[in-house]
Amino acid sequence: MEALLQQSRSMCPFLKRTSPTTLRTLSTATRPNTSPGGGTMSNLQVLARRCPVMNKALAVQSARLSGTKRFTSRAAGVAAFQPMRTPADRRDLHSSNGNPASLASGGYQKTERGDHHLANPLRSSPAAAEAALRGPPGAPHCKPYDYNGFYDAELAKKRKDKSYRYFNNINRLAKEFPRAHTASAEERVTVWCSNDYLGMGRNQQVLDTMHQTLDNYGAGAGGTRNISGHNQHAVTLEKTLAKLHGKEAALVFSSCYVANDATLATLGSKMPDCVILSDSLNHASMIQGIRHSGAKKMVFKHNDLEDLETKLASLPLSTPKIIAFESVYSMCGSIAPIEKIQDLADKYGAITFLDEVHAVGMYGPHGAGVAEHLDYDKWASQDSATPQNTKGTVQDRVDIITGTLGKAYGSVGGYIAGSAAMVDTIRSLAPGFIFTTSLPPATMAGANTAIQYLAEEPRERTLQQLHTRAVKKAFNDLDIPVIPNPSHIVPLLVGDAELAKKASDKLLEEHGIYVQAINYPTVPRGEERLRITPTPGHVKPLRDHLVQAVQAVWIDLGLKRTSDWKSQGGFVGVGVDGAEAANLPIWEDAQLGLQAGETLEAAVAREFEVAASAPAPVLKTATPLTEKAYSDAPAGVAV
Amino acid sequence: MEALLQQSRSMCPFLKRTSPTTLRTLSTATRPNTSPGGGTMSNLQVLARRCPVMNKALAVQSARLSGTKRFTSRAAGVAAFQPMRTPADRRDLHSSNGNPASLASGGYQKTERGDHHLANPLRSSPAAAEAALRGPPGAPHCKPYDYNGFYDAELAKKRKDKSYRYFNNINRLAKEFPRAHTASAEERVTVWCSNDYLGMGRNQQVLDTMHQTLDNYGAGAGGTRNISGHNQHAVTLEKTLAKLHGKEAALVFSSCYVANDATLATLGSKMPDCVILSDSLNHASMIQGIRHSGAKKMVFKHNDLEDLETKLASLPLSTPKIIAFESVYSMCGSIAPIEKIQDLADKYGAITFLDEVHAVGMYGPHGAGVAEHLDYDKWASQDSATPQNTKGTVQDRVDIITGTLGKAYGSVGGYIAGSAAMVDTIRSLAPGFIFTTSLPPATMAGANTAIQYLAEEPRERTLQQLHTRAVKKAFNDLDIPVIPNPSHIVPLLVGDAELAKKASDKLLEEHGIYVQAINYPTVPRGEERLRITPTPGHVKPLRDHLVQAVQAVWIDLGLKRTSDWKSQGGFVGVGVDGAEAANLPIWEDAQLGLQAGETLEAAVAREFEVAASAPAPVLKTATPLTEKAYSDAPAGVAV
Repeated sequence: MEALLQQSRSMCPFLKRTSPTTLRTLSTATRPNTSPGGGTMSNLQVLARRCPVMNKALAVQSARLSGTKRFTSRAAGVAAFQPMRTPADRRDLHSSNGNPASLASGGYQKTERGDHHLANPLRSSPAAAEAALRGPPGAPHCKPYDYNGFYDAELAKKRKDKSYRYFNNINRLAKEFPRAHTASAEERVTVWCSNDYLGMGRNQQVLDTMHQTLDNYGAGAGGTRNISGHNQHAVTLEKTLAKLHGKEAALVFSSCYVANDATLATLGSKMPDCVILSDSLNHASMIQGIRHSGAKKMVFKHNDLEDLETKLASLPLSTPKIIAFESVYSMCGSIAPIEKIQDLADKYGAITFLDEVHAVGMYGPHGAGVAEHLDYDKWASQDSATPQNTKGTVQDRVDIITGTLGKAYGSVGGYIAGSAAMVDTIRSLAPGFIFTTSLPPATMAGANTAIQYLAEEPRERTLQQLHTRAVKKAFNDLDIPVIPNPSHIVPLLVGDAELAKKASDKLLEEHGIYVQAINYPTVPRGEERLRITPTPGHVKPLRDHLVQAVQAVWIDLGLKRTSDWKSQGGFVGVGVDGAEAANLPIWEDAQLGLQAGETLEAAVAREFEVAASAPAPVLKTATPLTEKAYSDAPAGVAV
Repeated sequence: MEALLQQSRSMCPFLKRTSPTTLRTLSTATRPNTSPGGGTMSNLQVLARRCPVMNKALAVQSARLSGTKRFTSRAAGVAAFQPMRTPADRRDLHSSNGNPASLASGGYQKTERGDHHLANPLRSSPAAAEAALRGPPGAPHCKPYDYNGFYDAELAKKRKDKSYRYFNNINRLAKEFPRAHTASAEERVTVWCSNDYLGMGRNQQVLDTMHQTLDNYGAGAGGTRNISGHNQHAVTLEKTLAKLHGKEAALVFSSCYVANDATLATLGSKMPDCVILSDSLNHASMIQGIRHSGAKKMVFKHNDLEDLETKLASLPLSTPKIIAFESVYSMCGSIAPIEKIQDLADKYGAITFLDEVHAVGMYGPHGAGVAEHLDYDKWASQDSATPQNTKGTVQDRVDIITGTLGKAYGSVGGYIAGSAAMVDTIRSLAPGFIFTTSLPPATMAGANTAIQYLAEEPRERTLQQLHTRAVKKAFNDLDIPVIPNPSHIVPLLVGDAELAKKASDKLLEEHGIYVQAINYPTVPRGEERLRITPTPGHVKPLRDHLVQAVQAVWIDLGLKRTSDWKSQGGFVGVGVDGAEAANLPIWEDAQLGLQAGETLEAAVAREFEVAASAPAPVLKTATPLTEKAYSDAPAGVAV
């Protein structure tokens, strides 16, 4: 808002040169008004008549006030511009307020606000000028704002457009992963939509570290990083993260939402005339960060290199530019052409800001993400603790990588990684980093263990990918519409908000399967879906159960099949010829250790056998991830 | 930025009506230029000559371009407005670039940017119009932006103004509270600046809950509140928080930074024409939230009711207004006149947004904060689980209370509490709440235990207050300048950035005492201080050690005494007659159980005796908080 005021000030030659004091004087001194309504007008209004912008605005206002709606509640804001109202006018104003609910829901609708802004552009001028326009402070002119009416109206809007959210009480059980109990501690459901993609939240090494750290260092950090909240856990974690990504430095935040928001807001606001180019499917945290930066934003079409290049080429080379995008897009599973985006960044003098939130732990030989995965062999041949010879790899070229500790790493928190100078700049300038309590020591230590574990141990992500392939294949075999993508996300297209919610409810209530419906605004209207995320713990009986349950729900609700979408010409990749071929898994057969001619289930079984025969510390899970373990589950499990 | 563009669009009648396509066509079609420089100009430029705002701007530009500085690097941005540059011009442009470092540090200075905006107001128009003005994308015109130069320059600025932060590696030991080890696990220091004010981070009940929750529910929540991250821990914690504050509902966030930012940004942006009145000493999180809301902001003088009322009275009653303030201001320890601010809110139709971050757990009979403390007896007579008869109390009247789980509650996270409709609105609309991973189950469960413990057990906050009084008295007796305040904060005025840092370093290196120096921008220049926060664990030998060490440092560095400040007329309350009397502790003698004529140390000793004789569950601490326990400390402790 400050920026807007300053901008208005610099755009208007009059406001720019006139001091607040003069403006106040001008607005207090009055002279007879020659407008149809008669009465007096301030000297400021007289001057405003000479302005080509204001003159038109005042004419609109004048026409309105002389109409039948004079001093209705809608005109209350405008009325403040009439410093010399008569007592009779004021009574009119009082008597026309109507009930508070209608004031809140009707009186402040968007179109009305637009008119209001057009009619009174001076409202956007500096605060002093605005205050001066109101005349001397006096008795209240009308009723106070109806705050409760505002809340009720906002909630009613959410309910009306079906975007009101009902939270499901789901308590994921560490010892029965991937199962959970509901509000009742006895009732079990299988969770199929958690972002604890690899089950690291129940990894015994992680839990051991956390228990020990809790006992030694207590529950919380006790301060901001600057004031008593900086400790060896933060130092170690940031060192581990920097190494993971082959970067000079890393910085940990409360969450990756905060990391994205704070970093983009800081860079965008501090680099003069910065332009941020943002993928159209970017996460809310980046959208907010860009908004908060006040920088110019150019949205390019999702993963569209041509559109991105056109936009880059339209900007001077010397302009600072940040290309903000994700590696794996969470709601559709698409993967960005990172290398080609980096090529464009280099060509047009931009830096890249890559959100690997849904990829860290999951891709690449050390779980550093898709950028690492693109040079799989090169990074695989490196000791994760001391990567070398990785100059020129995609991950090396990307300028800023952001990631989370709250998904595949099973904990909470977020981070950025990049050059030492960039990280130090954000550390020194970003309020969202500076003015907040550090993550608890046990959280940071646990996350550090999870990262190190997954950097050494590929089994969880291998199994996750095999399970993903098996689930996608089973759905495809049943003509159930999976939105094609090369990643670990299994989005089932429903295409209707109410049906998606119903499908989710039926799965939970009738089948003991928890898959949250994803509706607007998380996805566009008409693209509503169920988003399924397999984990290493989703062994065959659980997968079979899921597929049968989804099939039953699809039949019960008469939901569209892939063939239905195909007959309509296809939609978001479903029923589109060639979409499958264009979305081959980024984890290749060889990378997963799949042998020629081997079935998926055979490979899964082999992976489990390796797990079972491996020495104890390699895969420390509370319940070994074997098919047998599942059949040993306590009675009463909903399968 | 979006708002700014839309505003520019709605302010300019031409831009408002013209489509981006038309603008593009206008900018491409050219005609001979009649300006002194000759050449061609686009149809858009011809139109711009007719605009009273643009015409002036173009005249300025034209005068510039015809001067000697034509096509210098500074004019590069302006040059983009000349779609038909000759090759010779382009060569000029190339040859004048200078080195990248000077471009970054000199070429984008603030004044230059101001001129640039004035000269080219169309730059602030919608993106399409702007892109159209640049002409066809072509070869790069100059060097790319120097990102590393930017980082280096920002860091150099921080170092130059002494605001560059060096973090101290401090590892607070749960079993030796309030001591910590440094980067070396053997070296002990006493922490005197933690915000774990009551030592709840090492409370055994809290740790027991966390251990159990970790084992049962794992390390992380595994999702956002909407997608698999909502659970019984969140439900219980929010119920506890709502009850604590006597409100209908509460909502938990990643941190109170996020809670403040998200709540103010959401309310301020959604309530039409909202004005936020903000105390001048408000925390960064509120300042950011207000900025992010885009709402009009009016800053009132710290705790100044008269200034606040003037500002409230200048606004129409019907305008939505939020008064945002804190109960305890962290860096000076001042306490807001909450009740009187609430009176003003009621009078002028505003709602109150009260940040109790430094007060929850610490004030009031149940630790709900200062608002509860103001009706101590009324709330004390209520069962904390089911408060009744508290209608009309200050806490009841305050609309929105925000608090943290990361300070007196010893954990991490933040929250808001208020009416069910308000909380549901924020839950439904705030991106900072919606799109982020929930806090881990163990974190929420641990915080819940801490809140319930402190709601029942006043001993920690009583001891904390007694220790605070003892420390303040000792400093005052030695003429060491404590900034007078009625709260638990002990700010020692130094008044110089370098000396404050030196004092902090000396305390750490020579005396094994960790007190962070607080410098600009956290406090204004000239008000640099050491901020000391006593806890229940700071028993007499530790307090004596602190006072002796501070005295030694004050002597070594020749720092100003209270009497020195007094002889200069006093500063920020130090050496000001009557400041002490005006800042009597808000915790009264009777509330602390101080008996008539009893010395502070006698009261402290008595409190400890009660603690020692109480049944085990009342004060479960790993090491009993007795004077004896301290003397039993392992050898090598720095005292």
